[in-house]
This record gives sequence, C-alpha cells and structure tokens, in this order.
Amino acid sequence: MRARVVSGMRPTGALHLGHYHGALKNWVQLQDANDCFFLVADWHALTTSSQHEDALERRVYDMVIDWLAAGIDPDRATLFIQSRLPEHAELFTLLAMHTPLSWLERTPAYKDWQARCAEPGNQREPASYGFLGYPLLQAADILLYRGTLVPVGEDQAPHVEITREVARRFNHRHGREVLPEPATLLTDTPRLPGLDGDKMSKSSNHGAHNAIAMRDTPAQVTDKLRRMPTDPQRVRRDDPGEPARCPVWPLHQVYSDDSTRQALAQGCRSAGIGCLDCKQPLIDAIIREQQPWHERAEAWLSQPKQLQWVVELGTERARTVARQTLKDVREAMGLAYR
Amino acid sequence: MRARVVSGMRPTGALHLGHYHGALKNWVQLQDANDCFFLVADWHALTTSSQHEDALERRVYDMVIDWLAAGIDPDRATLFIQSRLPEHAELFTLLAMHTPLSWLERTPAYKDWQARCAEPGNQREPASYGFLGYPLLQAADILLYRGTLVPVGEDQAPHVEITREVARRFNHRHGREVLPEPATLLTDTPRLPGLDGDKMSKSSNHGAHNAIAMRDTPAQVTDKLRRMPTDPQRVRRDDPGEPARCPVWPLHQVYSDDSTRQALAQGCRSAGIGCLDCKQPLIDAIIREQQPWHERAEAWLSQPKQLQWVVELGTERARTVARQTLKDVREAMGLAYR
Ligand code: SF4
Ligand code: SF4
Repeated sequence: MRARVVSGMRPTGALHLGHYHGALKNWVQLQDANDCFFLVADWHALTTSSQHEDALERRVYDMVIDWLAAGIDPDRATLFIQSRLPEHAELFTLLAMHTPLSWLERTPAYKDWQARCAEPGNQREPASYGFLGYPLLQAADILLYRGTLVPVGEDQAPHVEITREVARRFNHRHGREVLPEPATLLTDTPRLPGLDGDKMSKSSNHGAHNAIAMRDTPAQVTDKLRRMPTDPQRVRRDDPGEPARCPVWPLHQVYSDDSTRQALAQGCRSAGIGCLDCKQPLIDAIIREQQPWHERAEAWLSQPKQLQWVVELGTERARTVARQTLKDVREAMGLAYR
Repeated sequence: MRARVVSGMRPTGALHLGHYHGALKNWVQLQDANDCFFLVADWHALTTSSQHEDALERRVYDMVIDWLAAGIDPDRATLFIQSRLPEHAELFTLLAMHTPLSWLERTPAYKDWQARCAEPGNQREPASYGFLGYPLLQAADILLYRGTLVPVGEDQAPHVEITREVARRFNHRHGREVLPEPATLLTDTPRLPGLDGDKMSKSSNHGAHNAIAMRDTPAQVTDKLRRMPTDPQRVRRDDPGEPARCPVWPLHQVYSDDSTRQALAQGCRSAGIGCLDCKQPLIDAIIREQQPWHERAEAWLSQPKQLQWVVELGTERARTVARQTLKDVREAMGLAYR
C-alpha cells in the first residue's frame, strides 16, 4: 500500500555526506513507492539558530538544491517550504490547546537543554516557549498532511511518539479519526565522523567546514580526506594502527565492501599500508558518488526560475492538502462558522 | 491623537452586566475618537473550556449581538473573529521562537493554575501548552494590528506588560521598530456581584445563570433581583442591616447617585426601608439601561444576513492590516523569500 510519507529538514545550508546517508538516500528510495511530502522546516531553524537569520533564504535554496541533487524527483515528491503555509501555525496553535505541558517537558531535547542551562558558567539563552513546543510543531507538520509513515533516526523517534499521542487524543476527544496516527519508520543513520574526528553532526550549523559537503569538488574532497586525522597512536608510517580507534574507519563502513575492509584492517594493524593508501579508495568512492549530484545540481543552478517554480508548485500542492485537513479539524472542534 | 485600540473577549455566550460595565461601556466610548479593533477570541475559549466546543458558534454570535446591542458601531469599529485569521497563529508561532519560557511561567493565571493542580484531590486537567502560551497569543492578537492602546482591567495588566516586552525584544533583535509597544489603558472595572452574592465573574462560563444577562427581559431582571440574597444578618424586615455586608449594594455603586445611596444606606441601617424597597430603584435602572440594548439586538436578530455581513466585513478589514504586519515581520526575520 502506498503510504503518505512526511519528513523534513531544518535549512542548515549546504548538506554534507551525513545528511545524505542519514536521510536523503532514504527519501530517494521512499519516493518510488510512496506519496512523499518533504518540507523545508525553516520555522524550526528559528528556534535555536538566531544569529543566522539573514542568510536563511540562501540556506533554504542551498538545501533544496542538495535534495534535488541527491535525486529527489519533484514530479513524484512534493517539496515545499513550511513558512509559506500559515496552516502549520494554525494547526500547531489548535493542537496546543489540549496538549499537556508534561508531554513536551519530558522530551530528551528539552531536558537536555534545561540540564545544560543549569550548568555553572552556562552561556546559552534560556529555553524559549517555541523551543519547548518544537515537537508539537513537528506533530503539526506531519498531521497536517495526514502522514502515515515518518522516517526518522532513533534520536527523533520520541517526537513521532508525541505526534501519535497528539493525534490519538484529538481523535478520542472528537469521537472519530480526523488525524491518522503515523507509523514510525526507523531508518539506519550511520554515524559519519566529522573531519576533526567527532561526529559529522546532522543538525549542527557549524558542521559545514567540519564535513564533506555533498557538492564539494573532487579537489576539496581529496584535500579534506587527506588532512583528516587517523588513529592517534599511528604516528609514523611503520607504527601499526587500529581501525577501531580511527575516525576515518566509519567511512569505510559506508563506502567499502567486506573484503576491502578486511584487507585494509589487516594492512593497518600490520603497518602494511599507509594511511593515505587506506584513504584513497574512500576518496575515489566519494568522488564517484558525488558525480551525479554535481550534474543534477548544475542543471538546476543553470535555471533558477525552474527551481523556484518547483518549490512554488510543491508549496501549492501541499497547501491543497493542508487546507482540507484544517477544514476537517475546524469542523471537529466546532470552529467551522463564518 | 487617534490611537489604534485592540481588545477582545472570549465568547462565553450571552454577556451580562459585568461585561457591560467592565468592558463594553468603555469600548463604546473609545470608538468615538479611536481606531478600534474588537476581536472575538474564540481560540482563547479553547484553552480552558472544552466540553462546550459544540456550542461555540452560538456563543460567538450571542456575544457579537451583545456587542452591537451595547452600541458598538460596525461602521466605526472593526469587529472580527480570531479563528478566521490564521495570521494570529502565524505571528504567535514566530514570536514563540524568542519568547523565554520564564516570561510565561510567571504570569498570575499560570501560577494560579499550577497551585490549584497541586492541591490534594484536584480534579482539573493539567495545564496545556496552549494555556501556558495564552498571554503570548494575546500579545500576537494585539501586535498583529499594531495596537497602541489596550484597555484592560487591573487583572489583565500583566498580559499587556508581556506584550510590551515581546514587542521590545522583537524590535531590539531586528534593529528597528517593527511592532509598536502598546500602552495600557487601565479601565475601571466595578466588581458586580453574582446573584448568589459572589462576584459576577467576567470570565466564568457558568456565570450566565448567576448573573443578569444584558438581554434578560424586564420580568427576568425583576425576578432575579428580588430573589437575590441581601445582608445575611438582616433576617426580618425590622432587623437593621449594613450595606457593606450586602451583595446587592455594589449594584448601587453603579446605578445610583450619591444622594440616593446615602438615603438608602440610612434606611437600611435604621430598618427604615425593606430590602425590596432598596432593590426597586435598581430594577428600574437596569430595565431602563437595557431598553436600547433590546431594541438594537432585535434589529440585528431580524436580519441575520446583515449580521454575518458585518462580521465578514470586519474580518476582511482586519485581514488587510494583519497581512501587512506579517509581511513586515517576515521581512525582518529574513523569511521573505518565496
Ligand atoms: S590505515 Fe586506515 S584505519 Fe588504519 S589508522 Fe590509517 S586511516 Fe585509520
Ligand atoms: S436594605 Fe438594601 S443594602 Fe440593606 S440589606 Fe437590604 S438590600 Fe442590602
């Protein structure tokens, strides 16, 4: 059965390999057999990032180009921008009326923020009302399109759970199924390392220079990978290394097959190969993977009007669905008068 | 100078004398010299009342008729329905992103609710996310129309203070005055007693049968006032009474002049008059006051299409202003792309 898939990303600018392997690759597969709604969650970008507001438009379009570069097909999937549809805010506001505060206060992201704020010498802004409501706005994003399937990594699963609870409560309150409860599609999200050896964060705004961007040139990829730190105990070429300690190794989990990995691990442990030997197949694989992305991105970049048109069309398609849902929601709540 | 006045009421159904003397009378005066926006705050009705959703439409129109009955002139003031304008939700959502939770947690209404929830044997629902955000939605209601003057009773003044803080923060953040800070117009809100002797609550949903409705008939007014309890220590006609202990007395503060009050107080304390003697001038005054209300209400009730048209027109007038504000807000926040 065709599912209605709803997913989104905050516009953090040019995407990197972590975004691709953690989400986009999945989206591209899902669009074949399902009815997909992919939203640019630009309002969500406002809850935490603040200083970057000026560049939001650029970040939105950089991200959309990366989606298209990855192979999202605007003829099959609906691409749209959250902030263009006040319907998201209306459903958020209506659902807020009967969503217990406690549901939001217990989400990991909020508890984590509170804990960090309580640390001595903390410099971060206190949590905003919108930050606390983030999972509810996400619930509205999904329910507005009556999503039945939401692909998420494990860390986002609690948010889909809130979405389900919100829908269940609404339906129960009004004695019929107005908003279907979406199912969670747990997706594999490989942990790609940042260039400094830390995780290539999917959500960080500051990740771009610590990551390989989807549209980095072959020269940039080569340079970045070559400079990447390896097993800190492998100081010289003839020191043996240990892949388990090496930040480069997780990339082989994504890009190399079993036999290659086995040979490289052995070469590392015996100092039979150097780190550059070990990195070269990765460089090759990434450049090969990027090739079609570059081609698609260039095609879109050469016709900016077309690009805007795709977003425009997706947004209007989304609007039609959103309006119908809100009509039903208003009716259920007794708000359907003029 | 003409001010932009913004005020609203939750649609609790037919209004009573407390609404008139606490708010409507003021509105009628304000419309002469100012540009007034009066909104039916039906979303706000959802944060606390819940079981009554079905009757919302009736309550909305009963209230609008009472506004018109009181003398609100739709040719001068803009009357409109909050839920018809998703712009309220959008501004609420955008402002939420940078409104510290603490501003909302410290409002008296929220603290009061939390305290009551903590009482043993408490039966009320835990506070919802929307309930906590109530003052922020009110702020959005005001700022959306760039209100410069907000008439409120003392108990609502903290909410206008939050509105001012929210506007100030927004303007500061964006380096220019996008949303003017409204001034508070503290209005006199006489405490009218309920028929059982308690306060004739302006906000309670259950107040109607414990109050004199604006459109009660003369027979109902007479009956309700006659049955109203008086000084509990004045059991028999010849017991002397004390106006300070009597629930009827505050009505004289509103409806009688000084010399009448003096005479009645003396008659009460000396048992020179009976309670029905004391009540009769009130009955007369209220019936006299209601006369033009009845006439106006009947005129509107006899042309329901006209009534809907007035609300429709007001809502569209409000929409024009709201859209312009949101356009400016989006631009300031860097959300003005397509
Ligand atoms: S050989 Fe490969 S796995 Fe071993 S330390 Fe060097 S880069 Fe890392
Ligand atoms: S005489 Fe008037 S003031 Fe005195 S107890 Fe009766 S109603 Fe109240």
